Formats: sequence, structure tokens, C-alpha cells
Amino acid sequence: MADIYFWPLGQKVIPFGMKIVRQTTTAQGKTKLRSSTAGTRSKLRRKSQHSISEQYQKKKSSRRKTVFLCFKSNHQEDGGPKESGKLILKTPKGTRDYNPLEMAIRRTVFKTITDVFHMHGAVEIETPAFELKEILTGKYGEDSKLIYDLEDQGGEKLSLRYDLTVPFARYIAMNKITSIKRFHIARVYRRDNPAMTRGRYREFYQCDFDIAGDYDPMLPDAECVQLVHQVLSKLDLGDFTIKVNHRKILDGLFGACGVPAEKFRTTCSAVDKLDKTPWEDVRKEMVDDKGLDPNVADLIGEYVKLSGGEELIEKLQADERLKDSEDVQAGLKDMCFLYEYCKLLNCEENLRFEMGLARGLDYYTGVIYEATLQTGQSGKEGSVGSVAGGGRYDDLVGMFDPKKKIIPCVGLSFGIERLFAIHERKNKEVKIRATNTEVYVAAATKGMIQERLKLLAELHGNDIKAESSYKTNPKFLNQLQYAEENGIPWVIVIGESEVNEGVVKLRETATRKEETIKRDQLIQTIKTRL
Amino acid sequence: MADIYFWPLGQKVIPFGMKIVRQTTTAQGKTKLRSSTAGTRSKLRRKSQHSISEQYQKKKSSRRKTVFLCFKSNHQEDGGPKESGKLILKTPKGTRDYNPLEMAIRRTVFKTITDVFHMHGAVEIETPAFELKEILTGKYGEDSKLIYDLEDQGGEKLSLRYDLTVPFARYIAMNKITSIKRFHIARVYRRDNPAMTRGRYREFYQCDFDIAGDYDPMLPDAECVQLVHQVLSKLDLGDFTIKVNHRKILDGLFGACGVPAEKFRTTCSAVDKLDKTPWEDVRKEMVDDKGLDPNVADLIGEYVKLSGGEELIEKLQADERLKDSEDVQAGLKDMCFLYEYCKLLNCEENLRFEMGLARGLDYYTGVIYEATLQTGQSGKEGSVGSVAGGGRYDDLVGMFDPKKKIIPCVGLSFGIERLFAIHERKNKEVKIRATNTEVYVAAATKGMIQERLKLLAELHGNDIKAESSYKTNPKFLNQLQYAEENGIPWVIVIGESEVNEGVVKLRETATRKEETIKRDQLIQTIKTRL
Repeated sequence: MADIYFWPLGQKVIPFGMKIVRQTTTAQGKTKLRSSTAGTRSKLRRKSQHSISEQYQKKKSSRRKTVFLCFKSNHQEDGGPKESGKLILKTPKGTRDYNPLEMAIRRTVFKTITDVFHMHGAVEIETPAFELKEILTGKYGEDSKLIYDLEDQGGEKLSLRYDLTVPFARYIAMNKITSIKRFHIARVYRRDNPAMTRGRYREFYQCDFDIAGDYDPMLPDAECVQLVHQVLSKLDLGDFTIKVNHRKILDGLFGACGVPAEKFRTTCSAVDKLDKTPWEDVRKEMVDDKGLDPNVADLIGEYVKLSGGEELIEKLQADERLKDSEDVQAGLKDMCFLYEYCKLLNCEENLRFEMGLARGLDYYTGVIYEATLQTGQSGKEGSVGSVAGGGRYDDLVGMFDPKKKIIPCVGLSFGIERLFAIHERKNKEVKIRATNTEVYVAAATKGMIQERLKLLAELHGNDIKAESSYKTNPKFLNQLQYAEENGIPWVIVIGESEVNEGVVKLRETATRKEETIKRDQLIQTIKTRL
Repeated sequence: MADIYFWPLGQKVIPFGMKIVRQTTTAQGKTKLRSSTAGTRSKLRRKSQHSISEQYQKKKSSRRKTVFLCFKSNHQEDGGPKESGKLILKTPKGTRDYNPLEMAIRRTVFKTITDVFHMHGAVEIETPAFELKEILTGKYGEDSKLIYDLEDQGGEKLSLRYDLTVPFARYIAMNKITSIKRFHIARVYRRDNPAMTRGRYREFYQCDFDIAGDYDPMLPDAECVQLVHQVLSKLDLGDFTIKVNHRKILDGLFGACGVPAEKFRTTCSAVDKLDKTPWEDVRKEMVDDKGLDPNVADLIGEYVKLSGGEELIEKLQADERLKDSEDVQAGLKDMCFLYEYCKLLNCEENLRFEMGLARGLDYYTGVIYEATLQTGQSGKEGSVGSVAGGGRYDDLVGMFDPKKKIIPCVGLSFGIERLFAIHERKNKEVKIRATNTEVYVAAATKGMIQERLKLLAELHGNDIKAESSYKTNPKFLNQLQYAEENGIPWVIVIGESEVNEGVVKLRETATRKEETIKRDQLIQTIKTRL
């Protein structure tokens, strides 16, 4: 028990490597330790232990007393560790392996998304998994503490990439690119608190599409919305909403409500929590932590509750408090363009203008968007939340350019791990094969190893996907069973008599029908069957 | 100059972040500092500065005196850094970005290789980019110092993966898998001295294929050789050799020559350097560093020079010194099987039994192999060295299993960065497109933005890859030029008159021929043309 600590009052981030347990004391004075559920952990992340404990006690009978403890743990959140002597056999916290079936599903999802990227004429780039630490510094606001650093083993100070956007901006500035439409699919790293059952990991794939270049207003932005619409439609995961907002509208709103300019970003990051936290808690954070005037916070509260379509744009254009804000009006003009273009691009139906959408990252400067799947469609687990997000970030490349040259950018990122998780649940019934093998070469009698290898060489030489047993004299039934279990559609059977007669038997796995084929016509016959 | 150090005598690894310069002093007493060439650096890596300096002085006139210095450097080996204020705009040492054309080539190479993997019925898995540090400990012998560690930010001690084989073994043991044939394409990390012009990086792709399971001797091993043969043939990079040897033959040989058992591994890693270092230097390392008797070293020297085909197997089976070594004879028996199976699998022609092949890694226990491209075929840069390698490692999974259960494994890894480098050189003349766009939508007159967007939505809705300008009123010639420069085969032209008449013009980029098509027949017409 030496490793047990009390959950520090008011601390909102679960310390790395700590596990939360509930210590319950009954009226009889007995204490019990229980692992917290993913739900509790998630609540704890958002609230202080103090308020959680209070809430918890309110719900439970007053005879019980609950405290939250956290202790050092090498355990994974789901799936306990397996020990081998002293060696713990596990993947690092917040990471996972993908088994063959999961990989097959993943490849399908990737293919769908890259096909859409190619449909828009995007090119692909790749950057290193780590960057110089200073490249990432100052780009992620409050989330910077989640960056993984590499140990200083002499030489450069390095960090694992936190997203694909900052490396993209570095790439543009370093290569003096003035316009590019690129996609990039790769893993990024965040020392966040994992919630793996809901598809939140410390190592996870991002799937980014960005358009850099100085273009006419909102045309690239509308293409990004269209692209999200196309990908989510093609993945066929149920109804979705694409929420949109604009950083200029938010900043203008903050200004009009009386927030001092230096508190725009930090107010914005408080608003960002609205999708997971009730307004009361966000308001508390604004007033207590960020030091906003309670009246200012209440005023903001009135606006960030608003959501709608084009009628909301008109309403805000005429709003007494906002009509003199240049920022708000510029943002609303952009929103008009966006709605017009999205209508022409057939992707307006799922669009919703949400004043409460803020997006966490510091670097956004214009339109921001976030796609969510409808709760009803995502199975028992409830809403899976955001599956794609992005926005305009016109100043990021300039931060890297020696002459501060501005290259306007807009882009989006698919939360691909969540898409995988939903896709996996959805495809549990569908039989997906992990291999593509078309033909299995089986021996009916002993001593066929030479013949089998010759056949394999011939099949492979004709680009036919074929396997055979690694036993020199495998049992006949085992071979047929292997083909059936692995869904291999055809089996070539050879035995002593077939070799002597210069024929093979071709067996269809599904029907178990066999036919005899001349050895020299085998390839031709199989090619017509596949 | 404060950062300049003398190159430490006898040190063989260039310290991280250090750059080597030559300090030449002329007879007139003038000193000059010169950056070392990649060639010098490569020599320095293999020899001590002492012997290099001596050699160097022998070649140069005696009036000159040369010393090697190294100094701290943030500079990349190729391509200097670009500064942005204080921010250095570069990728970390030994890493690189891949631009769109390079990615297009890379995708082609990956496709060729994965097609072959699928042809053999392999499944795909993915593991995290980092592992618990202790998982990697004790697996790589002398190379362990090249492992990248993550900073201790609280919690688990982590290291970036050094290869894909150890994570594969961990995966098998953790999931209690008894047999699997899998491939895995991913990047690995080594704090080695990069030689980027020759395709050697600190972050690089590996492309692994492994067969785990308890099978009859040499059948999976022969499939690995066949697979290397198929991939290199399909990539069409010129003649290649697949060198093979056997760890049991090497160990038996060391024993028969009088090497004490505890020095087998370290003697093996000396022999491993034979492909890049002359025998004299390897002998010196054996005697001076590893403490072998000079006569023992000379005896080994006689054997490791041998190479050949099946006749060498016979010769060694009859060899007076080796014929009583159980290990040697067991290894030679395996080699007989390998040759027999490779003949049946049509992949024997490029096989060469090389007694001097040792492979660096500690974990090999049986057959080992390495494929090299012939010098003549790899362009001006000379031999590109090993492009694939692997072997049998029967004990690695057992190191992770709690009950030490043995799962025999054999596998191979393609040195994919080198294959890319060769492929790029080879394809410099071939016109490869970075995008797949099929149709460009161009406006002939102003005010066409609405029509263009509608057209784009219709084309995309029919899975046709289409782009248009992000300007609301782009210049007509600029649009045609864009299509020509990017090799987009078709351009749809619309202007005011076309819209009024309900038609579009379809322009073939290659011939510049135009035809008029009814708007409602457009999709159908384009689909027949693509």
C-alpha cells in the first residue's frame, strides 16, 4: 500500500502511471477498494476529486463514505498485464497492437478515405515521427504538456509529433512551397489519459487533408466540408452532423462581451470544453480559473448556446451587440459563402452552425468544423463524439518562415481510431478474411513435398495466391480443414496416382465438389475460376 | 572553436551530433579545416582515427600533417539548415520528409512487395512505435546503444522500436500464438550515423515477413528465400545475390577452431564486419579487442573466406576439422534441404553459400541470409549493399513467454529505404504523377464558380477524380496550363454560352482537341473515355 496516494484535491489530470480507485467506507466501518470504471475516470478528468466525491456521496446513502485514491500502476486500463518472470508482457500504456483481422478492417477504411483524397487531386507526403522540440513549442496551448519528449542522448532535443498539422506547416516553410493540397496518414503521440474502449489512445492514427495557398474566400474551406461529407457517407456509419463556427466570430464575440484581448485564447479553450462539460462548469472555469467577470461569462453563455443554419447567420448579422464588431461581421460573411458553396457541392444537409464550437488548438484563425456521429447509430456505447475536425490556420506557416511569409491554410483531420472502433463493431457479423489466399495445395498421399513445391512455384509464377503445408507429410483432412477454416476458395489435391496420370484434382471449398484436370491445363483453368 | 574536440584515438563510433573535419597543416605551417566527405566518415566509422590518420598521411605528401577533429553540429549531413530567427528549420538528424513524387514511388514499391506477401497468404499486424524499454533489453548485442529512449516523464520507461522482429516476438508470446505468417511494414529507429545519400537513415521503413510455428525442417526457411527472390525479381532492380549461411555452422566452426563458447557471439559480430572491412582489420579486432588466440583467428580466417554452392556443403561435410562437430553437421544438413527446396521453388540460381556471412543480431539460431544487388546495376554510387536480410530465430519468443515455451520463427526484412533510393534513381526518367486527377473543370468566362462547383459535385458523386481552381474568376489560360503541367488528361470547359446552350466542351489535354457534349450526357461520355 506504500504506493497509494490520495487523489489531490482540485487536480484535474490523473498523474501519469497512476490508477484511480474508490475507497468506500461502510457504516460498519469496513473499507473496500474498487477499481474505478472508465466512466468515473472520465468524470475525474473533467472535475476535481472534491466535486466528484461530493456528487458521489449525494447519490449514495449517507452511511457510506467515498474517497478517491490513486496509486502507481503498470497495469493497462483494459486487459491486465501478463508477467514473465520479472518481465511484464504488455504494450505501453495507451497503445495497442492490431491483429490481422483488425488490420484488414483498417486497410478497408484507409482505402475508402484515400480514394476520396485522390478524388480531390490531393498528393501524399510523409514527415518524421519526431521533430525538433522547438518546432512544436508554442503551437498547442494548454495541451503542450501532453507532448512526448525523447531522452537527451546527446545531440538534438526531439519530441514525438503531436499532430500532423505543425509538421506540415514546417514542411511548407522549409521547402518554400506556395500552394499544395496534400494528405498524410500517420500516427501521432499524446500523453493523454487513454480511454481505449472508446477509441482514445496515446498513439493513434490521424488522417489529414490540407489545402495551402492564397485563394478566393471559402472555396478551399467548402471543399474540406464536402470531403468530410463524402468520407462519412462512403464509410456508411449512420447519420452525422458537421458543426461549423468561425474563430473571428468567437473572438469578436468575446471582445463585444468585454473579454480583454489577452484572454481570448484562454476563454476559447474554456468554451471548447462545452461538448463534454455542462455550461455551469465551463462558466466556473471562466470565472474562477481564467478570471473573467461573472457578468461577461453569463453574456458569453447566452451566445454559445446558439446553433442553427443560415437563419442564425442573419440573426447575428442584425444583433445589436455584434453588428459593430468587424471580426464578427467578417466571420459571418465567410459563413454566408460557406453555406452557398456547400449547397452547390451537395453537402449542406448535415451542416450546423454552432456558436459553442471552439476547437482546442491555438492555431486556428478562421472557419472551424467538427463532425460527430449521431448517438443512436453508434451502438450501446453511446455517442462516439467527434470523428473529424479541422479549420483554417492562416498564420501557422508564417511562424516558421524566416521572412514571416503568410501561406493561408485550411484542413481537416479524421479521428481514424474512432472510425475503426465503430467500423469494427459494425462489421462484427460480416466475415472478413485476414488473408487473400486463393488456392491451397494439398497432398492426398505421402511423399508429395517435391510436387507441392513445384506447384507452388508455378502458381506464384502466375501471380496466383497460393499456400501449402509446412509439414513434409501432412494429414489430408488437416489440409482440407485449414482451407475451409481460412476461407480459401480452391484446393488443388495431388497424390501418387494423380502424379502418375499427369493430372490434379481441383476442389471447390464451398461445395466440396472435385474435378480432375490435366496438369498442363491447371493454371489456365484456375485463372478462369478466380 | 570552443566546441571542437579531437577525434578520440581508437573510438569507432562518431559521437552523436558531432561532425568530423580534417585539419590539415601544410609545410608552411598553415592550417585548414575541411568538412569530411561521406566517404571519409564511412571509413572513420569502421576504423580508428589512428589508422585512418596514418593511411591518410601515407597517401599525402609528408609535408602535410592531417588530424581529424569532430565538433558539435546541428547541421544535416546533406542540405544545410535554414534559419528562421533562432528557429532552425530542418528535420531531425538522420530523418527526412518524403515529397509527393517520392511518396508516389514509395507506394508503388510497397504495393509490389505486399502483393508478394499476400501471394504467400501472409496476414498483416501493427504494433506500437515504442515498447517498454525492458522488452528491447538484451536483444541486440553491441547495437543496443543505438536504441532511442523516451524521456522519463513519469510512468513507464519506453524506447522506440529498433526493429520489427522483437515486437513481433513480444506479440506472439503475449497473445499465446502458436503459428502465424505475418507481414509488417513500419518505421524503426536507430541512433546510428546516418549516410543519407546511400539510403541509411535513423528513421527508416522496414518491411518484414516472418513465419512462426513448429514445422518440418527448412520448409518455411526456403519460402523466405523464395519470397526475397520474387520481390527482387518483380522490383526489377538488376542482378542480385542471396547469400546464405547458418549460425550452427559458424558456432560449430568457432568451437572446432578453439574459440571458447562464451566468445561465440562476440566472434560472430567480428565476422559480421567482413562485408565492409578487410580480413586484416577483422582479425585485428578478434585478437586485440576480443582476445582470441592469433592462431585461432587465422584458422577462422581460412574458413570464412569460403563461398560456393552445393559443392561447398559436400566439401565441409568431409572436412577433417569439422566432420565431428555436431553443430556444423546439423547446419550442413539444413543447407542440403534448403538447396533442394529452393531448386523446386525455382529460386536457387541466385543463392550463394557464404561462410563469411554472420549477420549482426544476437537472436539468430539457424539459417541466415542476406540479399545484395550487384554493383554494376546500382548506378554510379557503387554497390548499395544489403537490400534484404533475415534468418531463423527459434529462441526469441521463448525469452518472452512465462513458461519459456519455444515458438520457432524464421523471417526476413527488406531494407526498403535502399530499395526506394535505387528505384528513384532508376525512375528519374519515367514520368510519374503525384496526383491521380482525371478531369479538370475550367471556366472560359467569368461568373462560372457556381456552375463549376455543381459540376465538381456531380463528377465526385460518380467517383470521377476531378479538380477546379480555387479562384472565383481564374484566367482561362492558367487553368489549361495547370491541367497540362499536372498531366490531367481531360478538361471540361464551361462558359456563359455553354451554360445557355446546355452543353460543355470536353478537351483532351494531350491533343488539345475539343468536342461539344450535351450537359446531361457528360458523365456517361467521360466514363467511356477514362
